[in-house]
Amino acid sequence: MLPKAVTGYLEAYREEHVAKLKELLRFPSVANSRAQDCRRCAEWLAGHLEALGLTARMVEGGGPPNVLAEARIDDDAPTLLAYGHYDVQPPEPLEQWLTDPFEPVVADGYLYARGADDDKGQLFAHLMAIEAWQRAGGGLPVNLKVFLEGEEEIGSPHLEPFLSARTEELSADAAVISDSEFFADGTPSITYSLRGLAYVELTLRGPSADIHSGSHGGAVTNPINALTKLVGAMHDAGGRVTIDGFYDDVADLSDEERGEWAALPFDESAYAASVGVDVLGGGESGFGVLERRWGRPTLDCNGIVGGYGGEGSKTIIPAAATAKISMRLVPDQRPERIVAGFKRFVADHTPAGTVAEVKVHAEARPVMLARQSPAMDAGRAAFEEAFGRRPAMIRCGASVPVTELIQRLLGLDAVLMGFGLPDDNLHSPNERFRLDHLYRGAVASAAFMNNLRAMARRQ
Amino acid sequence: MLPKAVTGYLEAYREEHVAKLKELLRFPSVANSRAQDCRRCAEWLAGHLEALGLTARMVEGGGPPNVLAEARIDDDAPTLLAYGHYDVQPPEPLEQWLTDPFEPVVADGYLYARGADDDKGQLFAHLMAIEAWQRAGGGLPVNLKVFLEGEEEIGSPHLEPFLSARTEELSADAAVISDSEFFADGTPSITYSLRGLAYVELTLRGPSADIHSGSHGGAVTNPINALTKLVGAMHDAGGRVTIDGFYDDVADLSDEERGEWAALPFDESAYAASVGVDVLGGGESGFGVLERRWGRPTLDCNGIVGGYGGEGSKTIIPAAATAKISMRLVPDQRPERIVAGFKRFVADHTPAGTVAEVKVHAEARPVMLARQSPAMDAGRAAFEEAFGRRPAMIRCGASVPVTELIQRLLGLDAVLMGFGLPDDNLHSPNERFRLDHLYRGAVASAAFMNNLRAMARRQ
Repeated sequence: MLPKAVTGYLEAYREEHVAKLKELLRFPSVANSRAQDCRRCAEWLAGHLEALGLTARMVEGGGPPNVLAEARIDDDAPTLLAYGHYDVQPPEPLEQWLTDPFEPVVADGYLYARGADDDKGQLFAHLMAIEAWQRAGGGLPVNLKVFLEGEEEIGSPHLEPFLSARTEELSADAAVISDSEFFADGTPSITYSLRGLAYVELTLRGPSADIHSGSHGGAVTNPINALTKLVGAMHDAGGRVTIDGFYDDVADLSDEERGEWAALPFDESAYAASVGVDVLGGGESGFGVLERRWGRPTLDCNGIVGGYGGEGSKTIIPAAATAKISMRLVPDQRPERIVAGFKRFVADHTPAGTVAEVKVHAEARPVMLARQSPAMDAGRAAFEEAFGRRPAMIRCGASVPVTELIQRLLGLDAVLMGFGLPDDNLHSPNERFRLDHLYRGAVASAAFMNNLRAMARRQ
Repeated sequence: MLPKAVTGYLEAYREEHVAKLKELLRFPSVANSRAQDCRRCAEWLAGHLEALGLTARMVEGGGPPNVLAEARIDDDAPTLLAYGHYDVQPPEPLEQWLTDPFEPVVADGYLYARGADDDKGQLFAHLMAIEAWQRAGGGLPVNLKVFLEGEEEIGSPHLEPFLSARTEELSADAAVISDSEFFADGTPSITYSLRGLAYVELTLRGPSADIHSGSHGGAVTNPINALTKLVGAMHDAGGRVTIDGFYDDVADLSDEERGEWAALPFDESAYAASVGVDVLGGGESGFGVLERRWGRPTLDCNGIVGGYGGEGSKTIIPAAATAKISMRLVPDQRPERIVAGFKRFVADHTPAGTVAEVKVHAEARPVMLARQSPAMDAGRAAFEEAFGRRPAMIRCGASVPVTELIQRLLGLDAVLMGFGLPDDNLHSPNERFRLDHLYRGAVASAAFMNNLRAMARRQ
């Protein structure tokens, strides 16, 4: 059990911690477009980690800087690697925010800001735990390595070479990542599998400039018409992706998983209502909703743009049209095979009169983590201590590329202790994080460190 | 033959006329979005017409004001109705203009500006002709009514009720519209048929906000995926529109027309090169290029937008996606029937989990004008006088809604004397108008008035 001094400290400093987290949330650290803000955010984090008694530094990796920090307490103690990411999703559409996305506001027990949950709030829970151990618990119970990344939201394009070159430096006995969520309010959860990602951008180019659709319509291939036909053809009527070989490497669910998922408190209508639709849809027919979210791959257009987007009408055949498309992958799919299949499909279906270009923005493998391990036991116990309930074991449809890389390159199956809630509006306007989950998340983090140490002693 | 004094005046005042036209081109009179600029442009035109000795006034019709002007010279003289539009296409994409679209520039014998050809330059040719007759030709040879509209580029949504209420006031013996073009450089042309238009905007709405495509992908219908499938399904593999009943009212070409079109100087590769594509496409297979442009209906997406359109990647299922779609119609299609079919198609194909909305921006009927008439003879002779060649008789794929309304409501088959050239970049960046065509267009307009008067005398 966690020393009272540690929980007492976290309890006593709730307000100070929220104030500090607000500082972190004020950086508009969007990896795509705000390089300077990302750098200032990384500097702030490095400074904060130093203030907590760790040795911290910023390390360049090709994108926004990585922050690495370390505290070595005892050669016999286990070493924990804690990961988080300080970059955030773009805040658009801004007009749908009730408050400024980068001016955090507390209301109704929640902290509202872009990144409040994903992932600044969750990573800050670990920083609070470190602080509590250092200032009130007599020092950290484990050797600690902290790794904070700045481009998770764009698929961590520089992460694999960065980690490959630092397998020794980042070696540890356990890893923790808090970038996931509860299955439902009141159902703390550990995630043991994440989908991978292949993110591409497809552009079809036609005439050299926008041309008059009256004068030329019927004679010149329209890049938007062509793009809708091409992208529309990527699903059949049953919602199955038609790209050749797309499902070749998809692993079936185990009976054990099916049983566990069936036992989860899941209400389809409540879920539909939570995202604001009357009816669910969009996936393969013949599969349940959780399987479609967690166990089946997808192909989703995340953006499309071409021609005239202003008010009213304009009669043109545009020079080009573009779709951004993300494919979520499940074990044992490989992004590079999927991208190759996508490119073949585009080449086979591009109509005469247009030229196709495919850019690859991100590739991340899906990951399946061991469900049984000493670290997983430590995580389960920590959750119980902090939230009063044993966590459910779930999958997640999203991608956290570092998880698979830590498994493959460092040989560690991380414990994914998520403190978010499904209605925290991740990637959406009015993102938020429940303040009580910030506090209890810190308790869980502190308990996790404690449990890891205790287990090591027993071994 | 036109009096030497009139042609001499036009020749002598070339520079002054270009300077005056530049004033007109400086108004960014986009009907959709620039109401004040449209009004100021209309005021300028009314003022200019008054200065030419006509009685001019601005008349409200629900959109940008209409300009009506009149000069009554003689009860025995024929009355000519001259139409033009002072609104212009939106100038976007601005980054592709080599010069400011609303700061006209002369280069290489062309005047570059949005509206230089379509339609300010062409309507100004008539104003130059009026000026030459008034100042050097001893006064106009015909009674003249001038009608200048301010929302042609958005499909003239208020025009039908406006004209219906003024059939007496605008009655005339002949009508002239210059909002079309030569078939090719060196081939002056009179257009005897225009396609109609049904312009709709289709929005599919899904979740109440943009949501995380990892967490929810596969469970929630993606409005962009759905829109691409829906719009993609509007054409079959042969380029034929699949909307039920779409072709029901399409009239076949006459053998005479087929013969005339075959005789036109048309080179498919040169045409493809002129719009910057390697290969033509986009229409129904089995029809020639000119027939696809002039004699067959089309369905073209003019704009599409949904989700994330910025740099890089964002992983969302967006709340909505929208396509702007124009359908060009040929005799004897009716826009209201086509729109009804479009709405039925959307209703039948909207997938579960999305809600469809169809807005109608514009409806205009196709028009077929009499190819033989005294006014047409006057036009042909005027073209020969101004450009030294007898004009070809052609159709045009674009729409000029007023043409059909003048036919239906005023009982007049207008003479469509187009002074533009196919490479004037209509509706595109770097729109231009050849200065020599401005001058010769004015000569043709002056000669047309003269010929109308002479014919009336002979009768």
